[in-house]
Formats: sequence, C-alpha cells, structure tokens
Amino acid sequence: VSSHHPLVLINAFEVPEASDDEFVAAWESARTFLETQPGYVGTTLHQTVSPDAEFRFVNVAHWQTAEEFQTAVTSADFRAAAAGLAQFRSHPGLYRVVGT
Amino acid sequence: VSSHHPLVLINAFEVPEASDDEFVAAWESARTFLETQPGYVGTTLHQTVSPDAEFRFVNVAHWQTAEEFQTAVTSADFRAAAAGLAQFRSHPGLYRVVGT
Repeated sequence: VSSHHPLVLINAFEVPEASDDEFVAAWESARTFLETQPGYVGTTLHQTVSPDAEFRFVNVAHWQTAEEFQTAVTSADFRAAAAGLAQFRSHPGLYRVVGT
Repeated sequence: VSSHHPLVLINAFEVPEASDDEFVAAWESARTFLETQPGYVGTTLHQTVSPDAEFRFVNVAHWQTAEEFQTAVTSADFRAAAAGLAQFRSHPGLYRVVGT
C-alpha cells in the first residue's frame, strides 16, 4: 500500500443528537462496501466532542484516484449500501493535501 | 511521539477562489505558532479540487488534549499569529475518532 494519498474525500454530516447510533450503523454499511472497491485506501470517522457542534460527524477518506472514487460511489451497490445515510444532510468535498 | 491522538480539530473554511494564496499564508502563520505549543501533534491542510466546493479549505489538526489546544488558541500570541484568518468564515469542531 502506497503512503501517497492523492485524493481525500471530506464529508461533514448534520446529525441530530438522538440519531448517533443510527448514523454510525449507516456509515459502517457504506464503508463495508467501499473498502472492497478498487482505489480505496482508508477512512476515518470523527464524532464531535461538543454537544452544540454544527457537524456531529466528519468522515475523512483517502482514495488512490478521483476516477476510482467516482466509479465506486455511483454504483448501484453503493446506493444500496449507503441508503441509510441519505436522511442526513451532508457537505462533501474532494481535496488534496497542500500543507502540513 | 505517541501515535494515539485523542483530540482532532476539524475546521472547514469558506474562501473566495481569488483568495487562495492569502488564505494559505494566513494559515501558515497560525500553524507556525501552534506547532511550538505544548500538546500540538500535527496538522494537515486540504485544498479542494472542485471549483464549486462549499469549503475550499479544510484543516485537520491533532492535539494531545483539549486543555492544551484551548490554552494555545486563547493566547494573545495566537490571536496575533492567526489574525489573517479572521476574514474567512470558518466551521470549527472538536472530534474524536470513532471508526475506521
């Protein structure tokens, strides 16, 4: 596995406090599918430690290429695996690392 | 350095396309101060690869403890070092890792 991660998906989710467990279960379903796909490097789910956070969860995922990411998330299998996430408003973006 | 990072600051910034260089210079000034502070572990700045991104930049920083982070960012020296960031609307939150 290369340590060079050219593409980073960062997705911030608006989740009601009472829906934490439901959100995590839906995220795990999506991840279980994505980790089988070509180009998947890894992902990290962050949960807020502040009760009044704008985004209770933020996912940071690494993919080898944008093309492999797009292929994975536009597949019918992904739509089925990620169906539980659709109810949560999300703010996704694709990034590259420009500073450390 | 421990590989265990209990606290993650994720900060999404709204930046006009024409202000990329100005933003990065301001971020570097803040980072140059923060990396001298007790409890700082590391940080990664992400820039969008999509022209229409809601957040053109997202910073993901790791700190040993919330107390050390709060001490660092409430200091007068930090306010001076980070003054250039104030013009950019930001969406900060403190997180812990709950899934990979």
